[in-house]
Amino acid sequence: MVKRTSHKATGCPIARPLDAIGDWWSLLIIRDAFDGYERFGEFQKSLGLAKNILTTRLRNLVEHGILETAPASDGSAYQKYVLTKKGLGLFPLLVALRQWGEEHFFEPSELDVRLVDRKFGQPVKRLELRSQDGRLLGPEDAEVRKISSGLRASPRPSSAQQVNDGRRKKDPA
Amino acid sequence: MVKRTSHKATGCPIARPLDAIGDWWSLLIIRDAFDGYERFGEFQKSLGLAKNILTTRLRNLVEHGILETAPASDGSAYQKYVLTKKGLGLFPLLVALRQWGEEHFFEPSELDVRLVDRKFGQPVKRLELRSQDGRLLGPEDAEVRKISSGLRASPRPSSAQQVNDGRRKKDPA
Repeated sequence: MVKRTSHKATGCPIARPLDAIGDWWSLLIIRDAFDGYERFGEFQKSLGLAKNILTTRLRNLVEHGILETAPASDGSAYQKYVLTKKGLGLFPLLVALRQWGEEHFFEPSELDVRLVDRKFGQPVKRLELRSQDGRLLGPEDAEVRKISSGLRASPRPSSAQQVNDGRRKKDPA
Repeated sequence: MVKRTSHKATGCPIARPLDAIGDWWSLLIIRDAFDGYERFGEFQKSLGLAKNILTTRLRNLVEHGILETAPASDGSAYQKYVLTKKGLGLFPLLVALRQWGEEHFFEPSELDVRLVDRKFGQPVKRLELRSQDGRLLGPEDAEVRKISSGLRASPRPSSAQQVNDGRRKKDPA
């Protein structure tokens, strides 16, 4: 793995979203939203979170465009919270967290709920990261590199023609 | 999406790991570890985190088996922090966070660093979640279900024979 300079200057795509998701309660709210919870009371009952804290978290998620409010489907005065397109984009992150949790925090006999495909009810496969040319990639197979502007992702491998090899030198110890 | 009962009783694979990762600083430390940072000073310089807070986070990550300490490679008195197998298992989660961040928090022209495959230097594809029978799955195509014990993931679709359809009824509003 190569060393790189501080992320602050480059605007790291991992650091920037952390403001929006904010904290772990927010991730649990998002998890519940994926599971179909929509109403304040449902989130509150599921999470056992104090109402004022839940209110703040929900407002933060709405402000960051992850959830949006809509009138409740039953015509009542309440509102419901639904995932936006941006919020739905967190699906892989939640799956990754789930799969890591299942692997390292559970005995197999403890796992009584699984994420399955709706069509056949089979547990989903592990998330896969692939190169443009289709190879499965693990942490040793990929790295962060500085790229030239105007990079277009090519479906065929084309060595270094589109990518500046921006590996930084190791900092002196 | 179906409603489900409180996660507390079932031991949610999303909730359980949150203790270990703890907070966003820990995720940034882990990100730096994937990028090759090993020494306390390197993390501290990268993150600009107060030393005592960094010390606590690193200790937490070691206690949870995500990082482990080893003597520094240069034979100095310092120690280095390296990702364990469990820590390396967080790779998909970091990629998911990166990809979500790239899509929603950056103008294309701002993205000057990308995750690429080491062999050809091409940006990696988007993470993919597939069913056992190979279909690409989005958030609407999968759901959490209660399963029978002794479930073995089958490579062929086999309708409901191995999975109890444990969908909960909607709670009364």
